[in-house]
Amino acid sequence: MNNLLIQNIGTLATPLGSKARGGGAQGAVKVMKNAWVLIEDGVISQVGDGTPPVLADAQVLDAGGNLVTPGLVDAHTHLIFGGWRQNELGLKLHGAAYLDILAQGGGILSTVRSTRAASETELADKAALALDEMLCFGTTTCEAKSGYGLELETELRQLRAIRTLNQRHTIDLVPTFLGAHALPEDYKTNREGYIRLLCQQMLPAVAAEGLAKYCDVFCETGVFTAEETRTILETGKKYGLLPKIHADEIDAIGGSELAGQIGAVSAEHHIVCRQSGIDSMARGGTVACLLPATSFYLGAAFAPARQLQQAGVPVAMATDFNPGSCPCLNMQLVINLGCLKYRFTPEEVLTAVTLNAAAAIGMADKVGTVEPGKQGDLVIWDAPDLDYICYRMGSNLVKQVVKRGILV
Amino acid sequence: MNNLLIQNIGTLATPLGSKARGGGAQGAVKVMKNAWVLIEDGVISQVGDGTPPVLADAQVLDAGGNLVTPGLVDAHTHLIFGGWRQNELGLKLHGAAYLDILAQGGGILSTVRSTRAASETELADKAALALDEMLCFGTTTCEAKSGYGLELETELRQLRAIRTLNQRHTIDLVPTFLGAHALPEDYKTNREGYIRLLCQQMLPAVAAEGLAKYCDVFCETGVFTAEETRTILETGKKYGLLPKIHADEIDAIGGSELAGQIGAVSAEHHIVCRQSGIDSMARGGTVACLLPATSFYLGAAFAPARQLQQAGVPVAMATDFNPGSCPCLNMQLVINLGCLKYRFTPEEVLTAVTLNAAAAIGMADKVGTVEPGKQGDLVIWDAPDLDYICYRMGSNLVKQVVKRGILV
Repeated sequence: MNNLLIQNIGTLATPLGSKARGGGAQGAVKVMKNAWVLIEDGVISQVGDGTPPVLADAQVLDAGGNLVTPGLVDAHTHLIFGGWRQNELGLKLHGAAYLDILAQGGGILSTVRSTRAASETELADKAALALDEMLCFGTTTCEAKSGYGLELETELRQLRAIRTLNQRHTIDLVPTFLGAHALPEDYKTNREGYIRLLCQQMLPAVAAEGLAKYCDVFCETGVFTAEETRTILETGKKYGLLPKIHADEIDAIGGSELAGQIGAVSAEHHIVCRQSGIDSMARGGTVACLLPATSFYLGAAFAPARQLQQAGVPVAMATDFNPGSCPCLNMQLVINLGCLKYRFTPEEVLTAVTLNAAAAIGMADKVGTVEPGKQGDLVIWDAPDLDYICYRMGSNLVKQVVKRGILV
Repeated sequence: MNNLLIQNIGTLATPLGSKARGGGAQGAVKVMKNAWVLIEDGVISQVGDGTPPVLADAQVLDAGGNLVTPGLVDAHTHLIFGGWRQNELGLKLHGAAYLDILAQGGGILSTVRSTRAASETELADKAALALDEMLCFGTTTCEAKSGYGLELETELRQLRAIRTLNQRHTIDLVPTFLGAHALPEDYKTNREGYIRLLCQQMLPAVAAEGLAKYCDVFCETGVFTAEETRTILETGKKYGLLPKIHADEIDAIGGSELAGQIGAVSAEHHIVCRQSGIDSMARGGTVACLLPATSFYLGAAFAPARQLQQAGVPVAMATDFNPGSCPCLNMQLVINLGCLKYRFTPEEVLTAVTLNAAAAIGMADKVGTVEPGKQGDLVIWDAPDLDYICYRMGSNLVKQVVKRGILV
């Protein structure tokens, strides 16, 4: 038995619920004062307030009167990639347009080249550094996508790196196949050929190795149409991969609508989402996974979070960590943006980065809340209450991360 | 002799210059590859590239091929205050207007109450925690204001706390008297009375103890008019305190114009700055100290940084760390905002957070560049080049801070 009793919790703030899909009511957060949590063999067994139990065989951790929440869940990252693209920042600020940069071999094509050139070990080692940091910032579960290979071998290599990291790193990883992230250079004039490659070679190979839980498509003008997205995702389903969609980031071409129709577990971005898309997601039980740090980094608009929430769509928020549009892996900045830009309350934000984020990656039965039966994943904050972590900005407010009942 | 040789610097990026006023040309950054820096008894004695000297009596630090810059200078903070105001975030997000909060005793009045209630030791201990964090994020010199007392004793207590911290903390502090931060409750209907108090009691007392280098005034609708600001600052000058002005944050009522006329070393905010204000500052040699994290946190507009720069006004950038409009002490976020919101290049941003920030607090003869004669204050970054620290967001990219030649 490996038991951990966390006591002297000034404020325990957690959503409640364990539905594998659909998340929880936005902002329905239970707050307990003077609380304690008992974790037995990595699983939360008891939560209470007042005098904690006296146990002979438990390690006791004093939370110092601070805030405790569930570990943060980052439900959307492009974790695995070669290289960085800092050189493009200077070019952009000196006036180069994105298409100029692309014409110089920059943009996503640059990351595809670097990723293709990297070994599985190199990719995993680089991503492990990012995961180390994410853990320090309070993330205990994280989704990770392929999508910088755009060819069979590199896509598989990215997914194998995720599998390796899931075994070797403290953070739990949920793998997503995103072969449909862009059209590779050599298929520029042969869209159908690439979709055939995706459906007839990549998806079967990914499924055969059991490398991904989800299949994701970038449904956007100049990338994949809604109909192409449907084709790819329906094929994915046949191979047991559940659908996700990058929808309505730049143009509203039907991604959000399709997400609800096809039963996507989550869809992402929704910056330019139409009412029909919102309604479809509400009907389909799709979680809207919003990526405010990307909006901020690109100087783009922010998704209509309040409209989504009011329509009954569960809202999650994630970093979108990637080397182009969001080189940020810090969920605390996402928390700030949730309040500042979506005008979500601290309780709504907490739901978005824990329970609903877990639901967005099919993990809400295991993580995302602090209640008996869930994994012992939580964060002790250097903060007295939930408002404080939303209010402060730019500091790492994590005091101690606990993963499966172990202090990390 | 206490000598430190930093070698294997992949990229050394620094502005050059030591004018006590006026800063350097925005973006004039010298970049050396494969560089080394020798610091003797806390002062930089040699900077070179290629093979470093072999010294019998120097500690050698390998920079690992990383970027080195001058230590960051945070030229505008309200470091000393009691309490926090996280409860107001929830109120605001639930729809309360600022005036509602003020009517409930919130806003700056709440911080004034907490500050008046705190002892000098309590104020210093709280601020020391903030300074510890700032140092971790790369800040090696920092301005600190009073202004939450609005009565003689508490203003003096704040300034004494700054003096104590300057002796006990690694970060060098530059003290500013900001008794004219707001009208205190008991002088609401007696503006002239408070200005008399400032000029006839507070300023003489501050000067007598040698507690402040600068006198600052919040020149704004509902706070102090431009004429009142002039009166206070001219009185400050008589007592040897140099002028600074919070100007044009909400309404353009003449603060920036006055700054140039009165020879202010710096003026701050400039969100709604008119051309006449820009021209006046350019003529007067006033540094514009911009506070982008405050604009961001308040959802306000961003200062016309490019217009200021093009008019020949040296631009600095600072955090504005305070418990109300900017609970952020991280200069790396300010660096990001400089690129993302002011569209400054990495070189222009570096000038703004080092040499020009030093000039904004009269320290450009001592810090703000890496060149012989300057204090040995620098940052070794976990980054290959200057672009990288502007491009990444949300991570602490500091690898090692060096203060007066000592590793901290």
